[in-house]
Amino acid sequence: MPRLSSAYGGIEVRKGSVTSPLWLDDIQVGNQFTSDVYELTADSIIEFASEWDPQPFHLGEESARDTFFGGLAASGWHTAAITMRLLVTSGFPVANGLIGASIELAYPTPTRPGDKLRVHLEVKDVTRSKSRPGRGYITAAYETVNQHGEVRQRTMARLLSFARPS
Amino acid sequence: MPRLSSAYGGIEVRKGSVTSPLWLDDIQVGNQFTSDVYELTADSIIEFASEWDPQPFHLGEESARDTFFGGLAASGWHTAAITMRLLVTSGFPVANGLIGASIELAYPTPTRPGDKLRVHLEVKDVTRSKSRPGRGYITAAYETVNQHGEVRQRTMARLLSFARPS
Repeated sequence: MPRLSSAYGGIEVRKGSVTSPLWLDDIQVGNQFTSDVYELTADSIIEFASEWDPQPFHLGEESARDTFFGGLAASGWHTAAITMRLLVTSGFPVANGLIGASIELAYPTPTRPGDKLRVHLEVKDVTRSKSRPGRGYITAAYETVNQHGEVRQRTMARLLSFARPS
Repeated sequence: MPRLSSAYGGIEVRKGSVTSPLWLDDIQVGNQFTSDVYELTADSIIEFASEWDPQPFHLGEESARDTFFGGLAASGWHTAAITMRLLVTSGFPVANGLIGASIELAYPTPTRPGDKLRVHLEVKDVTRSKSRPGRGYITAAYETVNQHGEVRQRTMARLLSFARPS
């Protein structure tokens, strides 16, 4: 069951998004965010993979059958792109945008056609830059989960963030 | 200057690709591979970002001007997708495909329109599974570099690999 967001860590959350962008000052360890849902079709798996990851297990149900995945699976880069789209459009409204400095990805299970994906994010660390006081880094852990609670992607990202302009 | 591949670690390399797929048994620490080139246009940056990472600095030269990037920059997920395409089509011909278990990404500089991207990969570790002798993991470090030698993406990936069928 996907957790539904309501109010986390004192920040008002509305359908997976907050009412205004968040500056470094607004973000605290433990804050959580939940995105809207993205529904994945077989056609879109094949379309993405044809351009970016043309391997048999991503290109068709038939060509995928006798592979490690035993059936059509989305490219990990497709799951990553969907995750980013969900965060940017509904998940984590950081002021000045989501700018990743470094990222760790893991794929516990393959993403499949019919998956309805949602992203749950939790802030794990907030650090202000010593050399540039107007900037800082947010470390966020997030999971991309389908409608059955299966985790398709686990991400840990270090994101650039900016202090509220004075 | 991009390094051009010729012969690395005893494996014959031909224009960034080997003549036949590599099984776990064929891959050794220190083996290096170089991909073909992918040329990136402003239009393709905007097209990718419109779907997967719709933020001002990825959507147009004008909307990008006053942002952190000071001009149009590709989504990191676009650079990652290009990197995968280069590895799959010309870079690292692992038998049964490139299947990432976990991945670390870093973006030292933003990818820009006009970049001609190439991937250089080096095998850092090869481990055979103890529980499943027919399988193993390859740890590969690779850089996505443009025509001026600027590193756009640094990747460390743990890839599933299969022993040659007996």
